Amino acid sequence: MVLEQKPVGVKPPTPASRPPMPRRPYNSYNRPSQRPPVRQSFSRLREVVPTVVAPLAKPLAAPLALGTKMRVMVVGGLEEIGRNCTILEYGNDIVIIDMGLQFPEEDMPGIDYIIPNMNYLKGKEKNIRGVIITHGHYDHIGGIPHLIPVLGYPPIYGLPLTNAIIKKRQDDYKNLRPLSIHNVTVNDKLRLGAFEVEFFHLNHNIPDAMGIVLRTAEGVIVHTGDWKFDYQPVAGDAPADLQRIARIGSEGVTALLSDSTNASSPGHQISESEIGTNLDDIITKAKGRIIIGTFSSLLSRIKQVVEIAERLGKVIAVDGYSLKSNMEIAKELGYIKVNPKTIVDIKNIEQYPLEKVVIICTGAQGEKNAALMRIANGEHRSVRLTKGDTVIFSSSVIPGNERTVQRLKDTLFRKGAEVIHYQMMDVHAGGHAKADDVKLMLRLLNPKYFVPIHGNHYLLCYNGKVARSIGMPQENIFIADNGQVMEFKAGQGVLTKEKIPADYVFVDGLGVSDETNVVVRDRQLLAEDGMVVIITTIDSKTGKLIQNPDIISRGFVFLKEHKELIEDLRNRVKKIVTESDPLSWADTNNIRNKIRDYVGQFLYTKTEKRPMVLPVIIEV
Amino acid sequence: MVLEQKPVGVKPPTPASRPPMPRRPYNSYNRPSQRPPVRQSFSRLREVVPTVVAPLAKPLAAPLALGTKMRVMVVGGLEEIGRNCTILEYGNDIVIIDMGLQFPEEDMPGIDYIIPNMNYLKGKEKNIRGVIITHGHYDHIGGIPHLIPVLGYPPIYGLPLTNAIIKKRQDDYKNLRPLSIHNVTVNDKLRLGAFEVEFFHLNHNIPDAMGIVLRTAEGVIVHTGDWKFDYQPVAGDAPADLQRIARIGSEGVTALLSDSTNASSPGHQISESEIGTNLDDIITKAKGRIIIGTFSSLLSRIKQVVEIAERLGKVIAVDGYSLKSNMEIAKELGYIKVNPKTIVDIKNIEQYPLEKVVIICTGAQGEKNAALMRIANGEHRSVRLTKGDTVIFSSSVIPGNERTVQRLKDTLFRKGAEVIHYQMMDVHAGGHAKADDVKLMLRLLNPKYFVPIHGNHYLLCYNGKVARSIGMPQENIFIADNGQVMEFKAGQGVLTKEKIPADYVFVDGLGVSDETNVVVRDRQLLAEDGMVVIITTIDSKTGKLIQNPDIISRGFVFLKEHKELIEDLRNRVKKIVTESDPLSWADTNNIRNKIRDYVGQFLYTKTEKRPMVLPVIIEV
Repeated sequence: MVLEQKPVGVKPPTPASRPPMPRRPYNSYNRPSQRPPVRQSFSRLREVVPTVVAPLAKPLAAPLALGTKMRVMVVGGLEEIGRNCTILEYGNDIVIIDMGLQFPEEDMPGIDYIIPNMNYLKGKEKNIRGVIITHGHYDHIGGIPHLIPVLGYPPIYGLPLTNAIIKKRQDDYKNLRPLSIHNVTVNDKLRLGAFEVEFFHLNHNIPDAMGIVLRTAEGVIVHTGDWKFDYQPVAGDAPADLQRIARIGSEGVTALLSDSTNASSPGHQISESEIGTNLDDIITKAKGRIIIGTFSSLLSRIKQVVEIAERLGKVIAVDGYSLKSNMEIAKELGYIKVNPKTIVDIKNIEQYPLEKVVIICTGAQGEKNAALMRIANGEHRSVRLTKGDTVIFSSSVIPGNERTVQRLKDTLFRKGAEVIHYQMMDVHAGGHAKADDVKLMLRLLNPKYFVPIHGNHYLLCYNGKVARSIGMPQENIFIADNGQVMEFKAGQGVLTKEKIPADYVFVDGLGVSDETNVVVRDRQLLAEDGMVVIITTIDSKTGKLIQNPDIISRGFVFLKEHKELIEDLRNRVKKIVTESDPLSWADTNNIRNKIRDYVGQFLYTKTEKRPMVLPVIIEV
Repeated sequence: MVLEQKPVGVKPPTPASRPPMPRRPYNSYNRPSQRPPVRQSFSRLREVVPTVVAPLAKPLAAPLALGTKMRVMVVGGLEEIGRNCTILEYGNDIVIIDMGLQFPEEDMPGIDYIIPNMNYLKGKEKNIRGVIITHGHYDHIGGIPHLIPVLGYPPIYGLPLTNAIIKKRQDDYKNLRPLSIHNVTVNDKLRLGAFEVEFFHLNHNIPDAMGIVLRTAEGVIVHTGDWKFDYQPVAGDAPADLQRIARIGSEGVTALLSDSTNASSPGHQISESEIGTNLDDIITKAKGRIIIGTFSSLLSRIKQVVEIAERLGKVIAVDGYSLKSNMEIAKELGYIKVNPKTIVDIKNIEQYPLEKVVIICTGAQGEKNAALMRIANGEHRSVRLTKGDTVIFSSSVIPGNERTVQRLKDTLFRKGAEVIHYQMMDVHAGGHAKADDVKLMLRLLNPKYFVPIHGNHYLLCYNGKVARSIGMPQENIFIADNGQVMEFKAGQGVLTKEKIPADYVFVDGLGVSDETNVVVRDRQLLAEDGMVVIITTIDSKTGKLIQNPDIISRGFVFLKEHKELIEDLRNRVKKIVTESDPLSWADTNNIRNKIRDYVGQFLYTKTEKRPMVLPVIIEV
């Protein structure tokens, strides 16, 4: 597997006054086993590009012209959990943090997903110095294949696992140019135009999650990404780097942008290893085969399952495309270490004694074609559910999926499986800071301003309350909307009323558009009460009806049961047309509107439904 | 308000061999204050109709012919929470318990709700001796306006509050005949054909919830309805009648059909008065105005809010149609006692000091036009949300509504309100038996068979596990599907493989149909990728294309952005038609199919969407 590729993207434009942009990856060592120790990497890095290595307390670059402010705009993630994206702009330099996707709401039929709106950057593509990705989850990386080409392939910076997942996903978009993607380590420091960038290690439920510090002459912005403090992380991950965070705090932080997902819960978030203990308990006690449904992105959890299974002498089969490829990546990078004999092909799984088998698969959200659903429905090629199987849902139910998951559980029970849905293994509860973690982060960084991000508005408010509770003044807590501009000048910040475009951009089949609202609205209407097409053929010369109107209807009423209604309707339309003065409908709009209004009213009276009425006049 | 009406329905058919059906309500005393003590009511009852008053241990009616079994068929509520309905049949006698509705799943666009399938009763209407309603919630009464007319208006029996809610709802269906509806007390005993019926008091989150005992020569069936044991119910309600339940148990119970909603939770369900204590705490501490969003059906909760507010010297305004009418009913029947001065018109609410105001309203599920949504959106006629208002969500979020509720909370926060979503006030958690309650019920009734009802399949399984845990043999626990027939003969029961019709019956505008699946499937298709209508006008004699095909599309792609695609499509259709042999499409079906297949494929290739393609051939 190629984990590193030469950056062949657009050469990032280099303002004359700034050091040249890196021409090659910061770290071309891929496998951790080959990775040199941190110091070495750091000094090596110094030789290659002129990154800032001096203590960063005072920004090296001089302030820009007097009026120039550093602008921070979160274009996605302030009104939802998903499509996370933050734009920082200082003069002619732009840095983007994360580029995620959001899964559609229930009132967006047919939409694949929603991505951040990049309209603000139109015409400013040349200013984009880099895109930094905090970690490899889809709500942080999912917009990349759609947006990076639009932005002219700016360089992407991320930790090795993050980048490997991004590159793997890019394989699905064959027609795109290769990304300009660069591995960094948390010890690296970058200069991206006017921005001096450093990183710090945080915990999450996927390894290689990091926070970002961005410094300009106007202030220091810290962006956490998704995080928790895990004092006892799973093997292979390190605890969050409290020392570095403290040092960054002692050097002064203007604003902290921090994850709100779980800030409304009191206390500290549990450790991944605690979740592991629980999983261990369940797996050890279960008598038959074990099937674990999870997210492919919960790599820390998957890692633990693998280790538990191995210790208990069980074999593991993995199913689900993204799960398999993430496993491959994690193994390749050394995050998951497993005896090759432990992993067996799902095709051969029925050969092993039931009590020796662990199957890890996707589909814990009841996704239609995912492995767990196929297993439940008896449609899986290799796995037949057997009485005595234990199915573990190792993820929380995402709002909107509850009923589907209930049905999935019904099916599993019908087939005789035990079902364990362990709330503690909650995907969000597991990975995100709770109130006390937020307080600790605030005490360590001691920022002047606090900007809750990553959550619905009410979650941001709860996160803001946490900051209030430890004494931060209300006016220094910025509860912003998507696209709302924050400006920083000489360490002073303000949440302005300016808004840059942040409307939904829909990915709909092969199309990407922010004009899809009309289409979605039509789909909603069609879904609600269906549609009725009324085709009236008239003589173009005389305006006379040539034949009976044709009526086509779908999704409205069951036609066989409503023949009379349709016949009645046909006659009424006929009457409207024959009784109208042909001269009055020069361009047929007039008569079309007349038919639409009349038919709409008539059908509502008869059925209390409001189908979409589409009158068509054919003139021959 | 008229709470009682003369039963003017169809005279229930009376088999010669059985005592005549009651001709008048069992209890025409409506207001509890006027209600005579139980004994008196009971003896009065005896004078009116020949109900069974002897000890009921041995059924009075003799067994029917040797092969005749008592059949128990739960047609709704075994695969969902909702549309509860159970049919009992013994010879020529049928009794129905509950007739509820279910709210549609997310994959049933446009459907208002789903009601039980009554196809089994077609041709058997004359055998229906009565419909007994356990309590006044919509998932137990909501099917009545749609199904009772179909069944020939059989008599309905219920406790006074239940009946009052049923009758109030009936007002929305002006074209229906009045119901034949009869108030009973829990001390009444009925003979409904071969069935001897008695009741027992249980707790729920609405007063007047009862269990039902139905006896024939073949066995004793106990149906709990929705229940919990509340040792400390709110004033006006009594604790569940443990003595009577024990007596019924000691007389022998063949099968217990019991609520599964919360059986998967360990421990005992909390008391309504405990929920009240929590509410009291929140209301006492809140500084500004209090707005409580709840279900109109949670009368026990509403009662408590009223009492707390009154004690604290606050005024109460009620908003929401069903909430207001339920309040009226509850006041009328004396379930809610309140100083008339405490209740003020919502129109005048802005006149009162904020700290003196409690508003109780509907809309805690984020329902579109409900009061709370209108208040949040600033569209309420009388209430403007103010900074410092406290909004309490006093109900759990029904699966499927999570995102809508999240958005509602966002809006409330934006307007500066405090939001308290107290999980303990969970509508389901509050009203339904937990595992230990189920165990107590099983120990009290000691049934031979246990039939979990009221829940998705997996919830029934969990309820079954509770029975297993206290030693009930697996083979005596019937986990049935909707419509699956249970047969009882001389105290022996069997879960047969026979299934009576139990498919969805949809209420869709004014239509009620079990054929709506086609329509719903069309709506799903339309919602997913929209539709494309292609109208081709040809000369009926020559088969030649008269003009360019017309293309209409909705919900597919944004047409302005895809003009070329449409033009391309038009030309391709033109080509198909002109190149086809006109003789080969005698009835135009041939060419229609050809267009449909071709266009479908073409559009998928171009857009990865599969719109519904509707080709129309107009011959002139």
